[in-house]
Formats: sequence, C-alpha cells, structure tokens
Amino acid sequence: MNMLDLIIKKKKGLSLSKEEIEYMISSYTAGKIPDYQMSAMLMAICFSGMDDRETADLTMAMTDSGDRLDLKRIDGIKVDKHSTGGVGDKVTLIAAPVAASLGVPVAKMSGRGLGFTGGTIDKLESIPGFRTGISEEEFIRNVNTDGISIMAQTAELAPADKALYALRDVTGTVDSIPLIASSIMSKKIASGSDAIVLDVTVGSGAFMKTEEEARKLASCMVRIGKLADLPTRALITDMDEPLGSLIGNSLEVIEAIEVLKGQGHEDTREVSFEIASQMLIAGGKASDREEALRMIGDCISDGRALKTFRQFIADQGGDPHVTEDLSLLPKARIEEKINSEKDGYVEKIHCDMVGNTVKILGGGRQVKGEEIDPAVGVKLLKKKGEQVRKGEVLAYLYANDENKLKEAQKLIAGAFVIGEEQPERGPLILDIID
Amino acid sequence: MNMLDLIIKKKKGLSLSKEEIEYMISSYTAGKIPDYQMSAMLMAICFSGMDDRETADLTMAMTDSGDRLDLKRIDGIKVDKHSTGGVGDKVTLIAAPVAASLGVPVAKMSGRGLGFTGGTIDKLESIPGFRTGISEEEFIRNVNTDGISIMAQTAELAPADKALYALRDVTGTVDSIPLIASSIMSKKIASGSDAIVLDVTVGSGAFMKTEEEARKLASCMVRIGKLADLPTRALITDMDEPLGSLIGNSLEVIEAIEVLKGQGHEDTREVSFEIASQMLIAGGKASDREEALRMIGDCISDGRALKTFRQFIADQGGDPHVTEDLSLLPKARIEEKINSEKDGYVEKIHCDMVGNTVKILGGGRQVKGEEIDPAVGVKLLKKKGEQVRKGEVLAYLYANDENKLKEAQKLIAGAFVIGEEQPERGPLILDIID
Repeated sequence: MNMLDLIIKKKKGLSLSKEEIEYMISSYTAGKIPDYQMSAMLMAICFSGMDDRETADLTMAMTDSGDRLDLKRIDGIKVDKHSTGGVGDKVTLIAAPVAASLGVPVAKMSGRGLGFTGGTIDKLESIPGFRTGISEEEFIRNVNTDGISIMAQTAELAPADKALYALRDVTGTVDSIPLIASSIMSKKIASGSDAIVLDVTVGSGAFMKTEEEARKLASCMVRIGKLADLPTRALITDMDEPLGSLIGNSLEVIEAIEVLKGQGHEDTREVSFEIASQMLIAGGKASDREEALRMIGDCISDGRALKTFRQFIADQGGDPHVTEDLSLLPKARIEEKINSEKDGYVEKIHCDMVGNTVKILGGGRQVKGEEIDPAVGVKLLKKKGEQVRKGEVLAYLYANDENKLKEAQKLIAGAFVIGEEQPERGPLILDIID
Repeated sequence: MNMLDLIIKKKKGLSLSKEEIEYMISSYTAGKIPDYQMSAMLMAICFSGMDDRETADLTMAMTDSGDRLDLKRIDGIKVDKHSTGGVGDKVTLIAAPVAASLGVPVAKMSGRGLGFTGGTIDKLESIPGFRTGISEEEFIRNVNTDGISIMAQTAELAPADKALYALRDVTGTVDSIPLIASSIMSKKIASGSDAIVLDVTVGSGAFMKTEEEARKLASCMVRIGKLADLPTRALITDMDEPLGSLIGNSLEVIEAIEVLKGQGHEDTREVSFEIASQMLIAGGKASDREEALRMIGDCISDGRALKTFRQFIADQGGDPHVTEDLSLLPKARIEEKINSEKDGYVEKIHCDMVGNTVKILGGGRQVKGEEIDPAVGVKLLKKKGEQVRKGEVLAYLYANDENKLKEAQKLIAGAFVIGEEQPERGPLILDIID
C-alpha cells in the first residue's frame, strides 16, 4: 500500500477501504507520510467527499491513534455534549449541571477557544480558583460523587486529529463535512462517554453558514455514531445572532447562573433546556422531550440544578459563592454604552462582528496559547425584532483598555442593522436528528 | 497576499490573478511556500481547473523562474518540436534533420526519458561518441553552421516547473490539462525558439488516453502559445500501438536512419513527415502541407536529410559512419523470437506492455539518474490488422541478461491480442490544431 495510490484513488472519486484509511492515518501519525501528500489527500477529500463507511473508518482510525479515556469506573450512562461553536454559547454551563442534577453523569472533556470568545474551559477558569487541569483520577471521582466534572482536553486524545487539524488549517481544507465530522467524533469517542448530544449551530456566527450544510454535518455525525455503536443525537440551532444577552467569559458564567436561577435570557434558556432534554433522553432518564422539559423545569425551580453547579465549582477548587455574589467574578474596569442612531427595529445583529468585538477587547484568542481577559465582553440589550428609539442603549461594552475599546466601539456599531419594519424571528431549534 | 487565501480561492473555483500566480510561483521557488500548501493548491487546480489566461500566466511565471536561452545569434525562424511521449517515438531523430536540411534552424533542448524507453537524449547517446552535454556556445555554433543541434536540457530552464513536477509526481496531481500544458510550454518558451510544433500522442502508450483529452491539451497549449506570442501548432497522433517497428534506444536510431534513407516503417514515415511538414510551415519554408510534403520527399530521395543527420552526429562528436554501417551501433547479445500461438489477425498490441517490456530489458529507467542499456529492445514484425499464422514470428526481443529476458518474454506475449477478424486501422494523424 502506498499513499500516492490512495491519493489518486480518492481523486478519482473512489472509496478508500478500512485498511487503506487505517494505513494512511497510522503512517501519517508515525511521520511516515509527508505533509505534502496528506494535504493533497485532504484537498481530494474536500472535492470527492467520503461516504458514511469511510467517514466512520476515518473517525475510528483517528480515535485509535491515541488513548481512550476509560470511564468504566463511573456508573450509569455517561452523556457527553458538544457544540460546533458560536457567539455567546454558554449552553454547556447550563445543560451539564441540569442533566447531572437529574441523574445523568456528565464526564466532559472540553477545549479552549480559538477565535471569537473563549471555550468552555476558558469560561470556567474565569471563576476564581477554578481548576480545569485536573487529573483523570480527580475527574472520575468528581463525577462519581457529584455527577459532573469538566476537564481540559489532554493532548493524548486523538493525536492524529490534532495533526490533521493543524494541516487543514493552513491548506484550505477545513470545510469538508466528512473531515469536520470525523474530527469532532474521533475526540468524542476517545472521551469515553456512552452517548453524545451534538449542538450543530448554523448562521453568521457559526461555522456552518446554511441550514443545508448544518443538516448534512449533523446527519453525518449521527450516522458515524451509529456505525461506532455510540448513540448520538444532534440539534440544529440558530446562531445567526449571539445566543442570549451576555458574551465574554465571566459574562457568560453570569448568564448561566441567571438561567440556573430561573432567570436569564429566554433564548439561552430555550436552547440550553432543549440540549439538556436530549441529554436526559440519551441518558435514559426521560422517555420523551415533554417529560424531560418538565423535569428540567422542576430542577431549576427547586434549586437542584444550581446546587449541582455550585458543588461542581467547589469540587474543582472554584469559589462556589459566585452563584450568590456575582461581583466575585472578574469585572471590567470600563462600561461603555452603545446607542442607537435612529428609530426602528433591530433587523439583524451580525453575529461574527459581535464575536470579533469580544476578541478585540481581549476576550478571545488570535493564536493558540494566548492569554485572554476573562472580564471583557458585550451585553446586548436589544435583539433581532426588538423596537429601538434613537439614543436608546443597544448594548454595553466591558473593557479594560481604552485603545481596544475604541476599536471595539467601531466594530459593534456596525454589527447592529436598524430597519423600519419589524423582521420575523425564526425558530431557535431548527431540527433534532437522532 | 498569502498562499492560504489563494488555495481557498482556487478551491472555490475562482480564477487567480496574474499577480497571485506570480506571487505563488516566485515564493514557492524561493522556498517561502511550503510543499504542503503547494500540493493542496495543485490538487485544487486538478479539480477546479484554470482558464486560458491563468494557464498562460502560470506558464510565463514558470518560464520567468529561471534563465531563457537566447537564440538571437541564430538567423531565421527557429522551430522547436515536442512530443508528449510514446513507445517507439523516434520522430525527433527524423523530423529535426529533415526540417534542418530544408532550411529551418532546429536548436532543440531535449530530456532524458523516465519510464518506458529513453528520451531523445538517451537515443542519441547510443551513437558511439555522441555528446549531448554540450555548451550553449557549441550548441549555437552547430545550428549556425549545420542548421541543427540537440542538447541535454539544463537545470536552469524553468526551475519552478522542475520543482512543481517533482511535487506533482508524488501527490497524484500529474493529470491536469493546465498543469501539463504549462509545464511543457514553460520549458519550450524558455528554450528560446520562435515557433513550436507539438506532437500530442493519444492511446494506451501515451499519457493522454482519449482523443478528447488529447484535443483539450493540444488546444490549451496552442492557446498558451498565442497568448505568449509564440506561434504554436499541434498534431494529435495515434499511440495506441508503438510507432513503427523498432523500440529501444539504438534500435530507434536504426529505424530513423532507415526512414532518412527512404525506407523504414510506413507509420514512422507518415508521422515524422507530417511533423516535419508543420515545422516547415512554422518556419516559413513552405506555404502549405502539400508543398511541405513534396519538399520532404525530395530531401529524402536526394539524400540531403541523411547528410544533415550525418553532419549533426559528427558535430556533436558521434561517429557519422553509423548511417552506413548500422553494426557500429550497440547490439544486444541475445535475440529471441516471439511466435504466434494461433492463426488470426493482430487485433491490438498493448502499447504500454511493449513499453514496459523494453523497460524490463533495461532500456528505460525506473528512477531518475539510472543507467540504461542502449542496445536492448523489441522489433515488431506484425502490427495491428496484419494476418498471422500459428508459429509465425510476431516480434524479436533483444536482450543482454537472461533473467530480464525471461520476464520480458512473459510480458510481450500478453501484449499481442490475436483475433479472428481483421480489425480496421484508424488514421495515425487525428488532427492538426493551429
């Protein structure tokens, strides 16, 4: 077997066999296939595609390129949750403690963010004292005692995916459904849970720009899950404007705490509870969506979900009092209003521009390893469809640096499109695929 | 400008600007763009293609990556000739002296072969004493005194093409019309002639397997020539069976000498004279094909073409007596008959299998730089459409090694397909594009 033949085969649009895919991934990981051959293969895959069997084989080959987390010492059906990313996406901070409080063990590895805002790990680290770099032992102990733990992803999981992702990033081969699907699923399978709930976001603030693409990616991952014997459900959710009202690391922790207290923005509540309901169904704790949503309503109103969140924070060294006293969280020095320049309705909020505003303020990373500022961000007071008057506050910026603030002000002003007619709001949950 | 953006642009099927193509080629040649990005680009070009303007810009960028041969010191319209390769293709050895004997200066750079049999340079080097590694000075002097010189290609011409070709070879990105066309044309333009005649071969022994592909490649190169102000004509010729009867390095010199003497195989005569006639037209020595073919008939029958060939050999240190005494050329130790196993007609001769037979005998290279055996090869006594009786000789093998001979015998036996009905022979010259 040699890589050149495999490249030509894929270029011709033929399917690669399981053995060929395994050879390719193991040889590449071992440094026996040069980057220039792998990048040609990746581009050929972008054009020729991969069928479900190939994508599942690629996923498993990447999973098998490293260790798998062994979660057997945790009882029950462990349910993992993954989002393809967005702006203001604090869903994990809500859905995970909600599901855990209702008996679904959540043992989740999560990543740091690159781009707009931080990842779940960055958001959690904005809580004073919170440790995400915990050992596997501590991780499993926390799940066994309190039903939940979230740790920073270790490099040993799916190293082939890590290497391939770095190569895709510099060779224009990121946007391929089978490559995206296998990248996500290989890490999820290596993370050792028994079921997965995927949040596939779509819109200007998401990686998938159209519903059709999002649907393809979601279906592909659900089918990989099936082939890999890992029950997988996917929700397709709207990310054409930021989720909820707060965007930024500690700001999103604040909104999560508000939702766990039965308050917070209704959009954040809706998406988080739908995700949590799928986690309950996947974990065998609810038989259908209606039952799950009822259970979730109960655990919010009787404080169980918040209690679980507090315990989770305490377990990982964080200050659990943040849930009662939000001022314990990092707070930016400057608060700046953004006013509307005219009367009308919010026709659209350019999601990517809001994301970039937070990045410019220091809340997201330009390159890996960069420090981020947990306190900065944006609060949206008006969202799509809402009426505004000239001079009324559209948003607040939270900043720690005057120069960055100036740049951010320019950007956020352009993010709001104010029109004369009230636009219709589409649904937040576009589909559920299982 | 950065390479990642260019890759993504081409991947989306958009055209690259002249500046973008120049940036890409000059940066790659300077080692500033890594192979893994260039291979992704090459694969994207294989799928998305390039329009004429892009292909011409790519050609010129590769031409400008190195030196250009300055042939101004040669009077007249210098005409170059290039073949996309085949089995038994000794056309240059005939057409070049024919054209030169009729007043068209031929100053040709040629390559060594890789694959089936040697290239023109390898064939010439089978003539005792013949030097192909001559200086530019000597090259130009020879053309000025005797109208013809052929030298081994120097590395300084189109170094970008050399680097790109090596990368294409190992990344499955060889078979793309714009990449093939720009590779050929960049070297031809750098070689400094005033006009080019291209022989685009098609069939089982050629790089282009279908007439449609060959036609596309030929048209593409003719259009590049136009955009580069270099008059270019292309013939599409059949290479579904080997050309003529002799295949191998010194064997092809023998067939060329026979044709220059007015003998030799009729197929070789036909193709060589058609190419030569286009060279005469391109060089302004004949106004049309009929006139050119008449002139060619004359220079063969009165011995001028053979005399020019003899002088050409002498100029480059070779023994000119080979034209009278063929036994001065390298001769293989073993001659082995291949007999027909049944009565019938030659339905087909698998051209690639004949080519591989010569390679196995030692007449072609597996890898660059390998020594080749000038004496070995194949003589075909029967060609497509000819009747054969059981036991009659189909071909002779010429070998210097018993083990290689055994392998070659097996291969050549399978190359002949004997059927019951006489197949129709198609034309050798499929089209002329200018």
